[in-house]
Amino acid sequence: MSTTEHVMSKFLNNPDDIVPESLAGLEAAHRDLVTVDAENQVVLRAGGPVEGKVALVSGGGSGHEPLHGGFVGLGMLDAACAGAVFTSPVPDQMLAGSKAADGGAGVLHIVKNYTGDVLNFKMAADMLDDDGVQVETVLVNDDVAVEDSLYTAGRRGTGATVLLEKIAGARAEQRASLQEVAAVAQRVNDGSRSFGVALSSCTPPSAGSPIFQISQGEIELGVGIHGEPGRRRGQLGSAAEVASQMATPILDDLGLESGSRVLAFVNGLGGTPAIELYVLYGELSKLLADRGIEVGRSLVGSYITSLEMAGASFTLLELDSELEALWDAPVHTPALRWGV
Amino acid sequence: MSTTEHVMSKFLNNPDDIVPESLAGLEAAHRDLVTVDAENQVVLRAGGPVEGKVALVSGGGSGHEPLHGGFVGLGMLDAACAGAVFTSPVPDQMLAGSKAADGGAGVLHIVKNYTGDVLNFKMAADMLDDDGVQVETVLVNDDVAVEDSLYTAGRRGTGATVLLEKIAGARAEQRASLQEVAAVAQRVNDGSRSFGVALSSCTPPSAGSPIFQISQGEIELGVGIHGEPGRRRGQLGSAAEVASQMATPILDDLGLESGSRVLAFVNGLGGTPAIELYVLYGELSKLLADRGIEVGRSLVGSYITSLEMAGASFTLLELDSELEALWDAPVHTPALRWGV
Repeated sequence: MSTTEHVMSKFLNNPDDIVPESLAGLEAAHRDLVTVDAENQVVLRAGGPVEGKVALVSGGGSGHEPLHGGFVGLGMLDAACAGAVFTSPVPDQMLAGSKAADGGAGVLHIVKNYTGDVLNFKMAADMLDDDGVQVETVLVNDDVAVEDSLYTAGRRGTGATVLLEKIAGARAEQRASLQEVAAVAQRVNDGSRSFGVALSSCTPPSAGSPIFQISQGEIELGVGIHGEPGRRRGQLGSAAEVASQMATPILDDLGLESGSRVLAFVNGLGGTPAIELYVLYGELSKLLADRGIEVGRSLVGSYITSLEMAGASFTLLELDSELEALWDAPVHTPALRWGV
Repeated sequence: MSTTEHVMSKFLNNPDDIVPESLAGLEAAHRDLVTVDAENQVVLRAGGPVEGKVALVSGGGSGHEPLHGGFVGLGMLDAACAGAVFTSPVPDQMLAGSKAADGGAGVLHIVKNYTGDVLNFKMAADMLDDDGVQVETVLVNDDVAVEDSLYTAGRRGTGATVLLEKIAGARAEQRASLQEVAAVAQRVNDGSRSFGVALSSCTPPSAGSPIFQISQGEIELGVGIHGEPGRRRGQLGSAAEVASQMATPILDDLGLESGSRVLAFVNGLGGTPAIELYVLYGELSKLLADRGIEVGRSLVGSYITSLEMAGASFTLLELDSELEALWDAPVHTPALRWGV
């Protein structure tokens, strides 16, 4: 047993081992659902590839748990590649994950729009193509807060990733073709917008110090999931004000009309408890009702996080009957489960 | 819209309204599952009482979400009474909740062992008895950290509450009698032990300042879910060391033999993200394997919290085939769902 004492207030052993150790814990807790390829840091669906089903492969930097490894299982992902905290996985991981997950019907890469992820998934897709594996890629870029950022050209991929992985996963379970699964994934991305805010910073374990400074009572509006700066720093207002600051740019950008039906997703960034997320949900539901927008489905919880950051994001997805039925389809993963 | 600016880094409007507003958000997000009696601050199962089924009624101070309101629905609670943050609800709430939930087969009160809750539930039970409603009470006192505390005579009720509400809820769905449901609830409590640790304090909204002070790199061993002091304050060690500090007193107290089978529950206290909880789970699973104890079921997540406190608790429940089958039975609540 190590006798390390450390000043970061986190549960960890050697800070450099947090990702493999967390993956090992995920596997130990959910052996019925997932297997971890420890060498490649890839979470795989237990039982091996599903023959004849399109394989969904995602991944990205760690620190956003349960995304992505917590979403591997029936009705969602077949493989999730875990990079170091806030660092893209490398193409070899994506190659290993895709090959292990491929059931002969092709592979869909679900890529959040960050420069490193995009480049590395592209390289992996090229290698898979050389090996005769069919690959389609869907880019998630739902964050309306900023057009370009520290890590991206164009919009960042945030909360919509969760919804897309669920819905495209359900479509794949129906044994739809690679093109059909990619098409519904694209439709989820196109119909989703997100906006996030932070009330605290977070500390990547290997760095050991917070990635930015923010005072009690301040809010970073439009923050990314790696603590990237947003639109502006301001004084924290009431929950009603914050909800409006988050929902308004989403609604303006989506251009939803009265009578539209949405999935409303209130996400915690890791350090914000449920009591506050539900206060925000209540405010969001009032804002939507004021505009005549109906909430068809909801999701409230910490599903795409930024380590222990206190903060939240809203994601709205415009629903239609197909997306709603795919959302309702059975799912059984470590972090999302129903119908089974 | 309020223009309040406040220095607490929380999503809220008037700090005194956080409980009713969070309940309103819970109802708005899960109208298919719950109804909120706003006057009494009671979360009720949607659709009214289930005729012929024993009604499970719990409650306690708020700030522990999703406990208890997030566990109302099929296969768990019929009513949850929400007090102010870290403050027992009053007997009138328990009376209202019990009457609204009663389906004619009696009511089980699930009471965490804190002096206020115990007294108030007792008064409510007496009033219900006067009104001819059959009531049984099960006291949850699973916390092995301290014998008496700031708020209790005897052990505190913590993580076992979640497991008990799930398992007794499943037994009630089978239309077992009040005595049978109470008996299995008692069995879960008797077979469960918990231990919690804190790495940060938390701030009750109405107080506006942290309830205790703890420095970066310190750990409070044996903390309660209201920030009550535990066994001792120390330097934070490695995750392996912390896991051993939590698991050892539980295992010593439960007296599990090699070959025993447990449900292992790693719970976050509100501000600790999933990546760290899974590191702890990995360490716990190694400690259990070393003793020859088999993990039959697991639960990892933030289910009984202490506002935004960074920290975690372990709960172990000795399983048998009946408890395991009841754990696996369908549940559909805002915070716990499977099989439906």
